[in-house]
Amino acid sequence: MPLHKVIYDTDPGIDDAMALVFQALHPEIDLLGITSVFGNATIDTTTRNALYLAQRFAPGVPVARGAAAPLQCAAPVPLGWIHGDDGLGNIELPEPDHGKLDARPAHRFIVETVRAHPGEVTLLAVGPLTNLALALADDPGIAHRVKEVVIMGGAFGIRGVLGNVTPAAEANVHCDPEAADIVCGAPWKLSIVGLDVTHETVMTNAFLASIRDRGGEPGRFVWDISRHYERFHFESDRIEGIYAHDYSAVAYLLAPHLYETRSGPVRVVTSGIATGQTIQKPSAMHVDAPDWDGRPACAVCVGVDAPAVLNLYESTLCAGA
Amino acid sequence: MPLHKVIYDTDPGIDDAMALVFQALHPEIDLLGITSVFGNATIDTTTRNALYLAQRFAPGVPVARGAAAPLQCAAPVPLGWIHGDDGLGNIELPEPDHGKLDARPAHRFIVETVRAHPGEVTLLAVGPLTNLALALADDPGIAHRVKEVVIMGGAFGIRGVLGNVTPAAEANVHCDPEAADIVCGAPWKLSIVGLDVTHETVMTNAFLASIRDRGGEPGRFVWDISRHYERFHFESDRIEGIYAHDYSAVAYLLAPHLYETRSGPVRVVTSGIATGQTIQKPSAMHVDAPDWDGRPACAVCVGVDAPAVLNLYESTLCAGA
Repeated sequence: MPLHKVIYDTDPGIDDAMALVFQALHPEIDLLGITSVFGNATIDTTTRNALYLAQRFAPGVPVARGAAAPLQCAAPVPLGWIHGDDGLGNIELPEPDHGKLDARPAHRFIVETVRAHPGEVTLLAVGPLTNLALALADDPGIAHRVKEVVIMGGAFGIRGVLGNVTPAAEANVHCDPEAADIVCGAPWKLSIVGLDVTHETVMTNAFLASIRDRGGEPGRFVWDISRHYERFHFESDRIEGIYAHDYSAVAYLLAPHLYETRSGPVRVVTSGIATGQTIQKPSAMHVDAPDWDGRPACAVCVGVDAPAVLNLYESTLCAGA
Repeated sequence: MPLHKVIYDTDPGIDDAMALVFQALHPEIDLLGITSVFGNATIDTTTRNALYLAQRFAPGVPVARGAAAPLQCAAPVPLGWIHGDDGLGNIELPEPDHGKLDARPAHRFIVETVRAHPGEVTLLAVGPLTNLALALADDPGIAHRVKEVVIMGGAFGIRGVLGNVTPAAEANVHCDPEAADIVCGAPWKLSIVGLDVTHETVMTNAFLASIRDRGGEPGRFVWDISRHYERFHFESDRIEGIYAHDYSAVAYLLAPHLYETRSGPVRVVTSGIATGQTIQKPSAMHVDAPDWDGRPACAVCVGVDAPAVLNLYESTLCAGA
């Protein structure tokens, strides 16, 4: 029986797609909708991919098109070498039925869905946070009406890593730091799954091959799209396998006990060389910090039981095959 | 026989004083001079303390007065509750002989001393880096003439800590971020000993009591000045003991094998909420980062054999007693 009514805000993206398959197959998740956002590719591409993924793995779940660019500047050039030019590893997927797109923009879809299910909706956001910031601007009242917000983004220097696209910033937050700062400051229950834990949770090629062989059609799909991503990881970080970025946010939602968190307000740097950096004032820190003090505490993931997270992913994908 | 000709640039400060005693007693260090800088107290107070420490523990070593304020703004209000109003734990020390002060400003003393001993001088800087930046401005040629530079400052998010005076900044760097960014960008051999390792090296009260009982007059002095500092640590961080900030820079100079380092250029944030933050681009990071690329690699301490560092301090203070 579903426990989590989820709006999945995403910029697919290979790991986004792997996280969608995870959600579609897990019995405790009730997907209310998928909202697209620019990020891993252009908004045209990520919306197409969201439609494709919904129609193949979550039929009937509405898809709404979201922001094409960050709040305060032009859309960045997509990093095709990470996710492929098509955002899904260049495996030549067929076109989805574009006629099925929800008529509302993503932020409006979020507002209306949250208002239709007060206190019940989880926003699971794994791309730039533009749609969530636009939803808050459209209707600040939703902050008190969502159940919780879980985002994949940022890096907090728990294990020597502050960023992946710059020395100070993680990609999702770097794409729209103003939006991220708004989302981190809103009065809702927010948990952040950043590089501090996703870099600790590596899906090896052997693990992915096991999912390919035991996970039926979804498992085969995960293997196929991850080939491009795996080559990127080897070339950039010399790891054999892939970091568990976006699906870690799903794992946190389903099994928060597998994560250690640190409480405290979070700010995002919006200018200068550290643009996109996420900085928490831990609640145990006893200095006045006017830029942080008075903002709501967020739960930042600082530790993870990585084998258990990987097992959760594998068992979900292989359960029904 | 001395191996290290050192200019000690310092803002005493309790841990600065403990580091000076360490250097004065260690046979491998030849102190060429002490330069004062604002920071833990006003320049009047830190210069008085530098004179006092020199006359008591390193007689004959010249002391030069340094910067009263950071490069680009007014002097900050000293944090009296950390080091005491007198900067040395409020134990009522006598006035030193102010007539012994070197006639040159600190940055000029640094330039002339480095030029007098080309390739031989280590700059050991444990306060705001203003004097070093002024020396570089006065004579950029010294960068190629110092042997090495070791600074205590910054925090690199190796274990979840980015700062102590703000959520993003360590005190020394925060006092003059512009100077720190200049010093980190100069073409000299630079090593950085930051909170990532000094917070891992805690002198407990039992350890300090042992030095008091076995370290003769210097040991008794270290105990006396550390009482105020110990109370601050308990009140702010709930630790019983004191972090090994400035003396860790001495330990690194004497025994670099006790530290693990990470190589890569370092930038300092000079505006915004993260002002004073130190950010390294690790040499293993394969992204273009124009704000870092082309700057010289620094060695940032990311790990420490803390028991061995503590043992080095204790054995040095107790060797001659």
